[in-house]
Amino acid sequence: MENFETINGGICAAKGFKASGLYCGIKHGLPNGNESATGKKNDIAMIFADVECNAAGVYTSNKVKGAPVVVTKNNLAKSGGKARAVIVNSGNANTCNADGEEKALEMCRLTAEQLGIPTEQVIVASTGVIGLTLPIEPIRYAVPLLAEKLSYEGNIEAATAIMTTDTVRKEYAVKFTVDGKECRLGGMAKGSGMIHPNMATTLNFITTDCNLSPEMLKKALSEIVKVTYNCLSVDGDQSTNDTCMLMASGLAGNTEITSENADFETFKNALYQVMKNLTIMLAKDGEGATKLITCVCGSAPDWDTAITAAKSVIRSPLVKTMIYGEDANCGRIVCAVGYSETDIDVSKLDIYLASRAGKIQTYKGGLNLNFSEEKAAEILKEDEIEILIELNSGTASATAWGCDLTYDYVKINGDYRS
Amino acid sequence: MENFETINGGICAAKGFKASGLYCGIKHGLPNGNESATGKKNDIAMIFADVECNAAGVYTSNKVKGAPVVVTKNNLAKSGGKARAVIVNSGNANTCNADGEEKALEMCRLTAEQLGIPTEQVIVASTGVIGLTLPIEPIRYAVPLLAEKLSYEGNIEAATAIMTTDTVRKEYAVKFTVDGKECRLGGMAKGSGMIHPNMATTLNFITTDCNLSPEMLKKALSEIVKVTYNCLSVDGDQSTNDTCMLMASGLAGNTEITSENADFETFKNALYQVMKNLTIMLAKDGEGATKLITCVCGSAPDWDTAITAAKSVIRSPLVKTMIYGEDANCGRIVCAVGYSETDIDVSKLDIYLASRAGKIQTYKGGLNLNFSEEKAAEILKEDEIEILIELNSGTASATAWGCDLTYDYVKINGDYRS
Repeated sequence: MENFETINGGICAAKGFKASGLYCGIKHGLPNGNESATGKKNDIAMIFADVECNAAGVYTSNKVKGAPVVVTKNNLAKSGGKARAVIVNSGNANTCNADGEEKALEMCRLTAEQLGIPTEQVIVASTGVIGLTLPIEPIRYAVPLLAEKLSYEGNIEAATAIMTTDTVRKEYAVKFTVDGKECRLGGMAKGSGMIHPNMATTLNFITTDCNLSPEMLKKALSEIVKVTYNCLSVDGDQSTNDTCMLMASGLAGNTEITSENADFETFKNALYQVMKNLTIMLAKDGEGATKLITCVCGSAPDWDTAITAAKSVIRSPLVKTMIYGEDANCGRIVCAVGYSETDIDVSKLDIYLASRAGKIQTYKGGLNLNFSEEKAAEILKEDEIEILIELNSGTASATAWGCDLTYDYVKINGDYRS
Repeated sequence: MENFETINGGICAAKGFKASGLYCGIKHGLPNGNESATGKKNDIAMIFADVECNAAGVYTSNKVKGAPVVVTKNNLAKSGGKARAVIVNSGNANTCNADGEEKALEMCRLTAEQLGIPTEQVIVASTGVIGLTLPIEPIRYAVPLLAEKLSYEGNIEAATAIMTTDTVRKEYAVKFTVDGKECRLGGMAKGSGMIHPNMATTLNFITTDCNLSPEMLKKALSEIVKVTYNCLSVDGDQSTNDTCMLMASGLAGNTEITSENADFETFKNALYQVMKNLTIMLAKDGEGATKLITCVCGSAPDWDTAITAAKSVIRSPLVKTMIYGEDANCGRIVCAVGYSETDIDVSKLDIYLASRAGKIQTYKGGLNLNFSEEKAAEILKEDEIEILIELNSGTASATAWGCDLTYDYVKINGDYRS
């Protein structure tokens, strides 16, 4: 029996985390009291922990880093990996501006003063258009109100505030047992698009009450990011502001996890469940997406080969349009496996398509099979499609997630910013 | 004054090359005498040289290689790099079939017998859907007719035969002087799409009467492919059948070029002119394209950095949709430069947009400028857009070519094969 259970509560599921969110007018100007009528959604959120947390972050590897990424990394370096609060806005990425770092630091200062905590214990993130000056007035206005609204049920308000062109709010949480104590772990995510898009920035915030040393927290996050978040591709573009942040309050009361023991495996599994489900939500809600694509690469010689091959398939525009067109044109999958940077023996390659409607093999030993086009069409009609590739060269396997490429992707990203 | 002049004639421009093309029914069945009325276009072509040529080829680096690529490489290895003829079909890629190599070899045998030359002196290429058995009957029917139709003015018939979803025929030729002799060099290309698409296969055939040793021919082709053909990206997918073939008859009568002397530079420049112009034609005619995008990366620390950065920008779907949407959302360009695998100092990055309508700077030192949106809109309204990136870190520069990403790309590639 698996040691976890899905629960509600998102970032407030774990003990000791309050959150809030509201509209402050980052893009459209300060509120005029008529926001719900005009449909203006929340654009700023706060998370506040009851106690000092261990925090670990994974950030974009883009050489252009958003100012909030730089400031958050500096803060955590100064605080020795301790954090109490998060302040995050949508509507402006605060990136490639002359005063970006100053503004990001000001967001931390305002939050710290309001909450009575050290500035370096504040995590800051922003998502939205690049290259526009961030207006600080809406944030000055918002911070005291956010602090006032903080609640143990504020997760929905916060998860709404970080959305941009997201069409659904993304939250997931689980409970599990470590050392006889019930632990909780939950998260919220945003992506992959913007109303006035600049990049498909993805933000992930995850909280837990499980007690882990900073080193083990970091280790768990790095390992799980590799097989979830980093196996997601909507369009192959990598944002300047991608951030995945994990905070642990320790309030579950378990003995601190300080080594790679069984408790650590349990924790990692819980983290995997939450991050995998957030990743799937991100893939499903990719800009313009009509279908979720899951590519599983099995019987690979090693794990990196499996990941690289699965990601190459998920990233291919020709595979994405083929799934959109519901066309079992699997030469495109062979091709994408073939140009992946791996040492795959393509003469051993088998390919299957699957969905709720069934499963069909289309390639065997690198050669096209004379499969039933009718069955394939039935399978591809569904909105969740699995592409299974077997390398028949080992025992490693990996999964990557993505979505189809549609007219609407072009429409969303071709539309003028304003 | 530049030592070359653009001329007509494509692959028949150089002395000693005949060509032909016709409809044989690779995909739609043998002709019934009513082809011009039903609009069935040529689907098979032949090139035949009056004398044995030195030949050099560059092929796809995809691990899945089309059967014709494998057979051509074997032939040239056996013949010591000598070739007399080319046989090439569209409508079927002859790839990922159990009997692909057998069929490709049969195409060479039929051609060799008909022309009275050794089988290993025949170059074979195919483009079209992957994974379908190639019907050999249409080819048996075509080869004698192709041989009969061979002519020094057959270039247009041949260039038409290799088209798939290409909307325009692609030919280019130049003349230049080496060693006091007039030399000619011309080529034809196809790409990037198929009516029943599988991948954006690109085929290039180039002929010259300039006299070069096999080694220098190979060297010139490798160098020029790197800065033309390999700097082209329509969608980032790399085909299984990509082939670029260069044949030299030596009939211009110049002293054989055997070293990297001034004549070699002259030859390379002529080859660059032809391949660059074919590359631009391929980019312009990318599936669904409405705009040609040229990205020039200047003041780079080295050549590889310049190429990598320019290609990263050209490949980005967010940049492609931004150009389609005529939106100067240049944070997307910064982002694509930022995630390129280079050691670029992004704080020195300048960006300009340019077209017939003018030129505007949008980023300076990695920061967004307060530029005129009106001027930017005027520039982006044109159908040939230049993105200029200056790294301000050296003297190297490179150019990459591509096209915008449009509804029609999704439509063409999402449509069912049959």
